[in-house]
Amino acid sequence: MFRAVGVPGEDAELAADVLVRSDERGIDSHGVARLPTYVTALQRGATNAAPKVEVVHETPSTATVDGDNGLGLVVGPTANRIAMRKAAEVGSGWVAVRRSNHFGIAGWYVLEAVSRDLIGWSMTNATGIVAPLGGATPRIGTNPIAVGIPSGEEPPFVLDMATSAVAHGKMEIAMRAGTAVPDGWAIDAEGRSTTDPAAVLLGGALVPLGGDHAHGGHKGYGLAGVVDLLCGPLSGAAWGPFTPNFTVVDRPPHDPHGDGIGHFFGAMRVDGFGPLAEIKARVDDWIRTMRSSPPLAGEEVLVAGDPERVAEADRRVHGIPLVGDVVAGLRAVGDRVGVAFG
Amino acid sequence: MFRAVGVPGEDAELAADVLVRSDERGIDSHGVARLPTYVTALQRGATNAAPKVEVVHETPSTATVDGDNGLGLVVGPTANRIAMRKAAEVGSGWVAVRRSNHFGIAGWYVLEAVSRDLIGWSMTNATGIVAPLGGATPRIGTNPIAVGIPSGEEPPFVLDMATSAVAHGKMEIAMRAGTAVPDGWAIDAEGRSTTDPAAVLLGGALVPLGGDHAHGGHKGYGLAGVVDLLCGPLSGAAWGPFTPNFTVVDRPPHDPHGDGIGHFFGAMRVDGFGPLAEIKARVDDWIRTMRSSPPLAGEEVLVAGDPERVAEADRRVHGIPLVGDVVAGLRAVGDRVGVAFG
Repeated sequence: MFRAVGVPGEDAELAADVLVRSDERGIDSHGVARLPTYVTALQRGATNAAPKVEVVHETPSTATVDGDNGLGLVVGPTANRIAMRKAAEVGSGWVAVRRSNHFGIAGWYVLEAVSRDLIGWSMTNATGIVAPLGGATPRIGTNPIAVGIPSGEEPPFVLDMATSAVAHGKMEIAMRAGTAVPDGWAIDAEGRSTTDPAAVLLGGALVPLGGDHAHGGHKGYGLAGVVDLLCGPLSGAAWGPFTPNFTVVDRPPHDPHGDGIGHFFGAMRVDGFGPLAEIKARVDDWIRTMRSSPPLAGEEVLVAGDPERVAEADRRVHGIPLVGDVVAGLRAVGDRVGVAFG
Repeated sequence: MFRAVGVPGEDAELAADVLVRSDERGIDSHGVARLPTYVTALQRGATNAAPKVEVVHETPSTATVDGDNGLGLVVGPTANRIAMRKAAEVGSGWVAVRRSNHFGIAGWYVLEAVSRDLIGWSMTNATGIVAPLGGATPRIGTNPIAVGIPSGEEPPFVLDMATSAVAHGKMEIAMRAGTAVPDGWAIDAEGRSTTDPAAVLLGGALVPLGGDHAHGGHKGYGLAGVVDLLCGPLSGAAWGPFTPNFTVVDRPPHDPHGDGIGHFFGAMRVDGFGPLAEIKARVDDWIRTMRSSPPLAGEEVLVAGDPERVAEADRRVHGIPLVGDVVAGLRAVGDRVGVAFG
C-alpha cells in the first residue's frame, strides 16, 4: 500500500517493518492499525512520499536532520542510521530531527542499535494532550523515551515508555470498551481528576508520570520536557501545544514555533566504554539479579522489554490477531489504492 | 576540613563548592550536612584523599574513568570535565565512572555544562533501597537523573530527579518530624504499602516513580535500571543491591559485582545541532509557553529548576539556614580535624 501511493520500494519496506514489528511486539495501537492514516496522508500530499532527508548541521558526533515532511517511519530510521554511523566512527552519535511525522514505536529504533552492539536512545514529541504539573489544560505530548542496552546471553534491556502516567492507547482501549480508567490517569476540562476515558477528548488532559506533586508528577512533566526540548527547540521542529496532530491527514499550516514532529536519536558503542564481552556479561548478571528478586505475593519482577519479547515470541509462531475494525480499515484503504488485502 | 584530612587544595575547593551549591539551591540533605560523613571516611582511609583519577578506555566521544576510590565530589567533577572536553572536540562526550563515592547533587554537574552552552546529563547509582516493580525487597537505588538545557534570556531548564517516587531525604525529614508519609512512597518488610517513614529502615523499601503497575511503576523502575546499567555494568562499578552504602565510613570489602559507586556524565554542544542563538531563543519560547499555561486553582505551572533557583536567589542574599544538629556535627568534626567552625 505504501508503494501504491508513491513511497519508493526500500522506504516502503522499511516503513512496513516498523509497523509489523510493533504488532509483533504486542503494541497493537502503533502497528498496521495506523496504516490507513498514513496512506491517506500520503495520498492527499499531506505527507511527502519521496522526501529528500538531509543533514542540515553536524559535528563528528551530532547532527540535525530535516525530514522534508516525509513519513516518520522513513525519516526516523534514516536519522537513526546516521546516529549509528557516527557511533561507529567516533564512539557515539546524537541526531535531532525536524519536519518529520509520527515515527511508530520508539522501541524499534533502539532495537536496531542493540542488534549492532550499541546502546540506543530514541525519543519523539507528540500532540499536546498532557497537562504540565499544576496546569489545567494540555500543553505537552506523551513524549516517549526508549533506551536499549545490549546483553550477552539474556535478552537485552529495552525500555520504551510514555512520560505520561499512561499511554494514550490505554485511554482509547477503555473508551472503546466503555469502562472507567483508574484514578490518577487524567483530568477533565475543569481540571478535576476523572475516571472517564472520554474526558481527555472533551477538553481534559492526561497527567504526567508520577501524577500529583506528592508522588512525583513534576518528574514525569520534567522528563516530557527533556524529550520535547531535544526533539523540538533543538532541531527546529514544532513542540508542546504546537506539535501537529498526527491523525490529521491534511497538511497543517506553517507554525512559527517550528516545523513538523521532532525526534531525537542516540547511539553509543558499548565497546567505547570497555571490553564488549565483559560489559555484556555484567549486564546479564544485572538482568538475572533483578529477575530473581523476591516477588510480592502473586507478582513477578520483570526486566524492561520482557512483555514485548513474550508477545513477539508468541506472535511469530501464532500470528498477529487483528480486530475486525482494523481489518475493515485495511480492506477499505486497500480497495482505494488498488491493493488486495486478506 | 577537607584540606585538614589530606585532600589537595584545588580538590578541596571543588568538593566544597559542590556541597555549598547544594545548600544554596535548597537541597539541604546533600550539602554540608554530609561533610562529617565524608571527612570521617577520609580520615579512616575508607576514601582516598589524593586519588589518581584515570581514563581507562576511550574513543573520541566516550570514556570510562577509574576514580581510584576518591571523593565523589572530586572524581565526579573530573569525569564531567572530560565529558565536556570531548564535547568541545567532537560535539558530545559521554563518560562512565567506576570506583567513585557519593558525588553530591546530580544537578551540580549539569549546571557546569549549561554554563558552557552544553546540554548536560548526570546520573549516579546509589545504595539499593528501592524495590523493583513487583518486588518485595530493595534491589536498586534512588538513582537520580539530571538534565540541563541552556536557554537565552530565561533561566535554564534543569531537571534533577530521583527515579523513585520520592527521594530518600523526604523519608528522613518525616522520620525526624515523626509524621506519616503519603501512601504510595514505600512498602514495609512484608511488602505492604505503608505510611510509616521508619519502615524502609526496618526491612521495607521505597517504590519506583509511578508507584504501582496501573500508574507506571514499571517506568520508574525502568529509568532506575537505565541509570544503574550506565553507571555500574558499563563502567565496572558496583550496581543494584551490591552498591556500597555511602554512609558507611569503613571501606567495603571488594565485591565481585564491581567496584565502588558509579556515575555517568554526558555533554552535547548546543551548536552541534544548529545556530546557538536560534536554539536558545526557541528554548526561551518553550519555557515561557509552559510557564504561562492555565493553572489549576491555587497552583502554578513551573519549569524544571525553578524551585532550586528561587532558593538560590534567596540564600545568596540571606544566607543558608543550618539546623542545630548540622551545626553540632560540623563543630564536632571540625574539632576532631583541628578546624574551627562558626
